[in-house]
Amino acid sequence: MGEVKIIEIKKSVFADNEKDADSLRTELKEKKVFLLNLMSSPGSGKTTTLIQILNRIKNKVRVAVMEADIDGDVDAVKIKEATGVPSIQLHTGGMCHLDAEMTRQGLDNLNLEETDLVILENVGNLVCPAEFDTGATCNAMILSVPEGDDKPLKYPLMFSVCDLVLINKMDVLPYFDFNMERCKRFIQMRNANAQVIPISAKTGDGLDAFANWLLDRISEC
Amino acid sequence: MGEVKIIEIKKSVFADNEKDADSLRTELKEKKVFLLNLMSSPGSGKTTTLIQILNRIKNKVRVAVMEADIDGDVDAVKIKEATGVPSIQLHTGGMCHLDAEMTRQGLDNLNLEETDLVILENVGNLVCPAEFDTGATCNAMILSVPEGDDKPLKYPLMFSVCDLVLINKMDVLPYFDFNMERCKRFIQMRNANAQVIPISAKTGDGLDAFANWLLDRISEC
Repeated sequence: MGEVKIIEIKKSVFADNEKDADSLRTELKEKKVFLLNLMSSPGSGKTTTLIQILNRIKNKVRVAVMEADIDGDVDAVKIKEATGVPSIQLHTGGMCHLDAEMTRQGLDNLNLEETDLVILENVGNLVCPAEFDTGATCNAMILSVPEGDDKPLKYPLMFSVCDLVLINKMDVLPYFDFNMERCKRFIQMRNANAQVIPISAKTGDGLDAFANWLLDRISEC
Repeated sequence: MGEVKIIEIKKSVFADNEKDADSLRTELKEKKVFLLNLMSSPGSGKTTTLIQILNRIKNKVRVAVMEADIDGDVDAVKIKEATGVPSIQLHTGGMCHLDAEMTRQGLDNLNLEETDLVILENVGNLVCPAEFDTGATCNAMILSVPEGDDKPLKYPLMFSVCDLVLINKMDVLPYFDFNMERCKRFIQMRNANAQVIPISAKTGDGLDAFANWLLDRISEC
């Protein structure tokens, strides 16, 4: 269980990422594969959230995970061990984001014929990943309570490209100056259609709501 | 008090950033200006830490602040109001880092003849800012407890380029699974010379140690 495949991602050769992302999205739709691109700051709890969600949905859909990181394979191993879900590690070689071609390099290492849902854990970064369309069916992000409710003001693009914002670490809300209503208002300013779900990956609170949101989206796809 | 100068930073024209950074560092040394480049994830508490440190050193050295952000002027205004220290806001126009030429564009808007210390608050990002030498005399970073003690494993370059790692939000340590000894060991793996100072920007704990570290460095410069 302790070993996962590590893919060294190469720099893209395509000049027009948006076109390439659109064509990847079309291919995935034809293959009936839903690709969720999950983004956040470092340390917001992406991996713990993934473990919680995978254990809720893995018996309902066939899911695989791609963990993008600059270095290491800690996350992919952790996910495989905690959930049994097929996980591969993508090494970006220092690159701060993934684009569609780089995402495709990861997907080529999965068996898409037997997969309904691929979750891509993007590089921990609120800036660059928002600028590059990965070809995902849907973008989601995690903002954690300790980061502060003002983040939509400071990282506008990230919030405007995400259909779903998970507010994580709700269990420590009493210890931080984080105003949920203010945060929701700032998110709405960036993206009127974004859905907000408060969660605690530690306690599991809110994870059923996230699972239902995801399963609904997949069934519509 | 509520208004600050906003500088729209332009893309650099220099191809060789390392050379440019070295020449900026030499110029600053000749002018007896110490430039501290402060980096971190989004939401690690850079601005609050700055307010604490500025109020401790502003009567000992002549200090100015450059706040780099993708958008907004919230931080520069907050710092000016809370400390009275001259602060300007640098807009990166979506760019995820500052290089030496971009830093110089900011410095051109300060009165360096009457400044001993400039603190640059870099864009909130653990990846890209580590790759670009700003020409700073010294690099420091903030890692906050909620982000986790494993960050030096996942963002190796950031930890290896920093002379000082401040561990912030020590006041919430009891609520998180953060092992200080393990974190220090991981930091040492990346940079054997890095100094680690635990702080709480909220309570002020550890800020005197940071102030002393900084004043010592400036006097050696």
